[in-house]
Amino acid sequence: MEKISKRFLLTVSYDGTNYVGWQRQKNGLSVQQVLEEALEKLLGGPVRVTGASRTDAGVHALGQRAHLDSATSIPAEKLPFALNTMLPGDVRVLQGLRVPDSLHARFSVSGKTYRYQIHNSPHASALYRNLSAHVPVRLDERRMDEACRVLLGTHDFAAFAAAGGSAKTTVRTITEIRVERTGEEVFLTVSGNAFLYNMVRIIAGTLIDIGHGKLPPESLQKALDTGDRLQLGVTAPPQGLTLMEVRYPEVSLSLPEDEQ
Amino acid sequence: MEKISKRFLLTVSYDGTNYVGWQRQKNGLSVQQVLEEALEKLLGGPVRVTGASRTDAGVHALGQRAHLDSATSIPAEKLPFALNTMLPGDVRVLQGLRVPDSLHARFSVSGKTYRYQIHNSPHASALYRNLSAHVPVRLDERRMDEACRVLLGTHDFAAFAAAGGSAKTTVRTITEIRVERTGEEVFLTVSGNAFLYNMVRIIAGTLIDIGHGKLPPESLQKALDTGDRLQLGVTAPPQGLTLMEVRYPEVSLSLPEDEQ
Repeated sequence: MEKISKRFLLTVSYDGTNYVGWQRQKNGLSVQQVLEEALEKLLGGPVRVTGASRTDAGVHALGQRAHLDSATSIPAEKLPFALNTMLPGDVRVLQGLRVPDSLHARFSVSGKTYRYQIHNSPHASALYRNLSAHVPVRLDERRMDEACRVLLGTHDFAAFAAAGGSAKTTVRTITEIRVERTGEEVFLTVSGNAFLYNMVRIIAGTLIDIGHGKLPPESLQKALDTGDRLQLGVTAPPQGLTLMEVRYPEVSLSLPEDEQ
Repeated sequence: MEKISKRFLLTVSYDGTNYVGWQRQKNGLSVQQVLEEALEKLLGGPVRVTGASRTDAGVHALGQRAHLDSATSIPAEKLPFALNTMLPGDVRVLQGLRVPDSLHARFSVSGKTYRYQIHNSPHASALYRNLSAHVPVRLDERRMDEACRVLLGTHDFAAFAAAGGSAKTTVRTITEIRVERTGEEVFLTVSGNAFLYNMVRIIAGTLIDIGHGKLPPESLQKALDTGDRLQLGVTAPPQGLTLMEVRYPEVSLSLPEDEQ
């Protein structure tokens, strides 16, 4: 009798420093690859995972999500403990859930939160060098915080997309955006329904320029109005970016009663 | 004419993960060695630095201090920028000061602050794995905070010293001690006039045991009263410890007017 395959959703955290990014690539080690190899060791046979977000090389995650199908009898909540004994220390599985077969890690996403960390000090950080971007000139975080609010809501973010994206529409909704300082660390937090390729790093790069007066705060509104990428700053470097959380509609995570 | 040698005091930050500790050793690379090598490249000739604290392998620093003597004409405040172009990214010089010849980085210290970071979560941290100790069982940080207050003030800390120390007396003064939680991170902050070998890590290890009920809060008082190391928990691992600040008496840093 063939075993029936079930769908699992994992929450994954990683330090992206030593990876070519989330997605499998020929030119180096990806987080997807080390996760699939650990799953294959644990479950036997080939396993394919699908991630919510294809984070770039150097980008980190506290709450990436990925789904996989398996006929394993290991309870979902035991998967993190078993996998973490096999994974390298810079990749940790934090949660395992049984979910309906209809839940797709990427297509079912209802919202994501990113954080961008800037080490704002004359000298780079020895301790957080891989977890932040270094900006030596003093940033005015209140100016950045005020300026970024114009991005709240639903807009055409065409100007905020790097070449190489494949989105059919460039309209997105930002539900939360703010800039805060803790000592020498400046944090940008952005939540939205979905993001264009490099969108958060382009917002971060532009806010850095606004924060030290290189660009006027109105640049963001002008970019929304015109769709002109040249209104904005450079794409901020990857190591400052962390995928904090991926959300799904409550109902899409609920198993039918007879499968619980 | 021989140039007159002047004394400089540097503030140094480092990620201790890839070093055998602060002090030069035959069995591997120390922070002292990479700093001396950068100074020799910059200033020419052999340079010897003396650190305030001989931090162990894996221990980090945000505000280590070290003095050196040189006849260089480079202004003290330019030294960090010049040295940081030569140092590896996990060692940064944050400040350079001209100080009187009588200032000794170690013997003139009036106070130090350490922080111990605990990642308190069922799974280890992928991002902060080298900057924190992992404690999977839930810690009661208020219990830890209340218990640690008994260490405030001047006491004989004989029970809190690891073998291998060379202190003539084990009496020390703690001027500040507290435990706080931010999400899954628990921080112990300790300031004092001086510390015995491994003293902060023994305090941290004991507070962890108190925080999950393995040791009663009274263990700390009992250890002070009896000098008995066995009243206390294990020495917490090095990677959670960061030397935050080293302080000197104001007057010992002031240059005579004709040398300014």
